[in-house]
Amino acid sequence: DFHIDWDASAAEKGGYDYFMLKEIAEQPQAVADTLLGRLKENGEIVLDEVRLTDQDLRDVDKIFIVACGTAYHSGLVAKYAIEHWTRIPCEVELASEFRYRDPVLDRSTLVVAISQSGETMDTLMALRHAKEQKARVLAICNTNGSTIPRESDAVLYTHAGPEIAVASTKAFLTQLVACYLVGLHLAQVRGIKYADEVAAVVAQLQEMPGKLQEVLATMEPVRELARALAEAKSVLFIGRHVGYPVALEGALKLKELAYMHAEGFAAGELKHGPIALIDEGCPVVCVVPSPAGRGVLHDKIVSNIQEVRARGARTIVIAEEGDEAVVPYADHLVRVPRTPTLLAPLVTTVPLQVLACEIAAARGHDVDQPRNLAKSVTVE
Amino acid sequence: DFHIDWDASAAEKGGYDYFMLKEIAEQPQAVADTLLGRLKENGEIVLDEVRLTDQDLRDVDKIFIVACGTAYHSGLVAKYAIEHWTRIPCEVELASEFRYRDPVLDRSTLVVAISQSGETMDTLMALRHAKEQKARVLAICNTNGSTIPRESDAVLYTHAGPEIAVASTKAFLTQLVACYLVGLHLAQVRGIKYADEVAAVVAQLQEMPGKLQEVLATMEPVRELARALAEAKSVLFIGRHVGYPVALEGALKLKELAYMHAEGFAAGELKHGPIALIDEGCPVVCVVPSPAGRGVLHDKIVSNIQEVRARGARTIVIAEEGDEAVVPYADHLVRVPRTPTLLAPLVTTVPLQVLACEIAAARGHDVDQPRNLAKSVTVE
Repeated sequence: DFHIDWDASAAEKGGYDYFMLKEIAEQPQAVADTLLGRLKENGEIVLDEVRLTDQDLRDVDKIFIVACGTAYHSGLVAKYAIEHWTRIPCEVELASEFRYRDPVLDRSTLVVAISQSGETMDTLMALRHAKEQKARVLAICNTNGSTIPRESDAVLYTHAGPEIAVASTKAFLTQLVACYLVGLHLAQVRGIKYADEVAAVVAQLQEMPGKLQEVLATMEPVRELARALAEAKSVLFIGRHVGYPVALEGALKLKELAYMHAEGFAAGELKHGPIALIDEGCPVVCVVPSPAGRGVLHDKIVSNIQEVRARGARTIVIAEEGDEAVVPYADHLVRVPRTPTLLAPLVTTVPLQVLACEIAAARGHDVDQPRNLAKSVTVE
Repeated sequence: DFHIDWDASAAEKGGYDYFMLKEIAEQPQAVADTLLGRLKENGEIVLDEVRLTDQDLRDVDKIFIVACGTAYHSGLVAKYAIEHWTRIPCEVELASEFRYRDPVLDRSTLVVAISQSGETMDTLMALRHAKEQKARVLAICNTNGSTIPRESDAVLYTHAGPEIAVASTKAFLTQLVACYLVGLHLAQVRGIKYADEVAAVVAQLQEMPGKLQEVLATMEPVRELARALAEAKSVLFIGRHVGYPVALEGALKLKELAYMHAEGFAAGELKHGPIALIDEGCPVVCVVPSPAGRGVLHDKIVSNIQEVRARGARTIVIAEEGDEAVVPYADHLVRVPRTPTLLAPLVTTVPLQVLACEIAAARGHDVDQPRNLAKSVTVE
C-alpha cells in the first residue's frame, strides 16, 4: 500500500544529497497517490473538478494538448494513449507556438493544458486563447487552486506533492498517469470502453508503483555508468512510438542539469540526417519498446541500434526483462520490468532521470538549481 | 526571367567548390521553375497530376503531412500556410512514426507525402498505410515517375533539377513553394479564396527568385562568420512561427555537414529547459519573423534574443531589412529582404545553408558526401 500522509517534513532532503534524488525516489508514492480513489465502485473514472456535462465530452471531436518543456513530453505520450483508446484525433503543441499561430478550434475542441505549477504563463495564455475560441479546457496540474485549474472547465490534480528540484521528475510521472486517466475517462464517457476494460487498465496502472520500486532498486549500475559518461561531449537519445517522447525527456534532463549537448530523436529519423553526428565512442541511449506490443516496431529499433553501433556509438539500451534481441548490441543494458505497451514510459523514464542527475553531480553542478532556470516559468 | 533549359552539363560543379554551393546558387532558378505555369489564364492553380475530383478535395476535413528529415521541415512550414489559408486542420508527422502509431484516417483525410527522391522508404510506407485506410494521397516530389508519385492520387512535381549534394538545399526551397501552391489550390477548390487573392499570393511567390538573388549576393559576411565559428563546440538555433522550422532546418544542416551539435528550438521553449545550455560565447542563430506580420510575436523573439545574450550567447540574427528593434542585440546581423509573413522561410533558410556549408568546409569535411549519410534513404 503506497498511501502515506503528507507532512511538513516532506520538503526536506530526507537523507538524499539532492532534492532531485529524493523526488526520483518518491515516484512510486506519487504515482500511487495520483491513482488513489480514481476508480469509483460503479466503475467510473473520477477527475477532481468537472464543470462539463458528459454530453460536452461526447461532443469532443478534436483534442489539443498544450504544454511546455517536460510537461510537453507527457503530452506526446498522451497522444498515443488517447488516440489508441478513443480514436479522437489528438494533437500536441508547444504552448508558446500554439498561441501565436491560428489553431483551428471550436466548441467541439477539448484543450488539455498540462502544467506542474498551474502558473506556466505560456500554457495559461494558450488556455485563454482556446477559451476565446469557445473550446473546452481540461487542466492537469499539481498545485491546487492555481490559475490554470481555476480557469479550466475540468481539472485532474496530480498528487506528486511539492517538487523542489527545478528539473521535473515525479511531476512528469504523475502527469503521465493523469493523461492515461483522462484518456480512459473520455473513452468511458463516450461508451467506447466497457467498465471491465477500463478497470483492467487501472489495475495495470496500479501495478506501476511496485514496478517503479523495482527500477529504483536496480539503479546502481546506472550511477556507475553516469560517472563514466561525465566527460562525454554529448549524448544522443533515440526511441520509437511512446519511447520517442521518453528519448526527448532524457535529453532535456541532461541539457537542464549537466549542460551537455543532448538531443532526442525518433529513431527512424537518424538516417535522414542526425546519424552524421555519430563517431567513435559517442554515447547513444536507446529506449526500446516492448517486443510484445508491435513486433515490427521492436525489430526496427533493434536495427537502429545496430546501425549506430556499426558507426562507433557506445550504446546504452533501456529494454524490458526478457528482451533478448537487444543483448548483442548493448554496450550497457538497463533492464526495466515488463509493462503494457502504452504504459512503458512510466518505467523507461526513470533510468534517464538517474543518469542525468548523476552525470550533473559528477560534473560538479548544483543538481537542484541549474543555471539560468526557474522552477515555474511565470513569464511568456 | 529565370527560365533556362536543363541540360547534361548541369550536373557538373560549374565553377563551385562543391555541388552544394552550386545548388544553393541555383535556388532562384529552381523556385522560378517550380512556379512556372502554375497559374492558368482562368486563374486556377495547376498541379501536375490529379486523379481526384474537386469534390474529393472539397470533402477533405483533415490533412496529414508525412515526411522525413529536411522534407519534414518543409511540412512544418506548410502547416502554418495551409491552416491559415484553408482553415483545414493540418498535422505534420515524421513518416517513421506515423506508420507505426494508429493515426486516425478516413476517406476525408488528405495525406501529403513530401520526398525529393520519391523513393524514401519511410514516407512510402506511410503513404501505403494511409491508402489502406482509404485516405487520399497527394505527393510533392522532385523525381518524375518515382514510386511515391506513381502510388499517389495527385502529384505536384518540384522542378529543382537534379540535386547531387547529400544535404538538401534547392529541393527544400522548391518543396516550400510546392506546399504553398497546394495550400492555395485547396483554398481555391473549396471556394475560400477569390481568384484575385490567389493571384496576389502567386505574384508574391514570383518575386521570391529576385529576393533570393539579393540574399545570395550578400553572403560574403556569412562566409566569414562561418570560418570564425568553425571551432565552436555547438550552435543553437531559435525561431518562432514559420521561423521555428527554419531553425530546425539550420540545425539539421549543421549536424549533417559539420558533425556539430546543433539543435533548433521554438524560442518560447528556451526558458523551459534548453537555456541552461547557454554559456559564454555560445553561438545562437535567431530567425526573426517580420515585425509586419504579428507584432507581439516579433516582440517576443526580441526578448528571447536579449535573454540568451544576457547569458553570454553570441547572437547571429537573421532579420528582414528595416527591422531596427533587433540591432542592439545582434552580435552579427544578417539582413534578408522583406517578404510576406508566411513566405519568409524561402529567404531566411539560405543564410543557414551557407553557414553550414562553409563551417563544414572550414572543418575540412567533404560537404557533398557527409559521413554515414545517403542521398536517398530507400530502406526503413
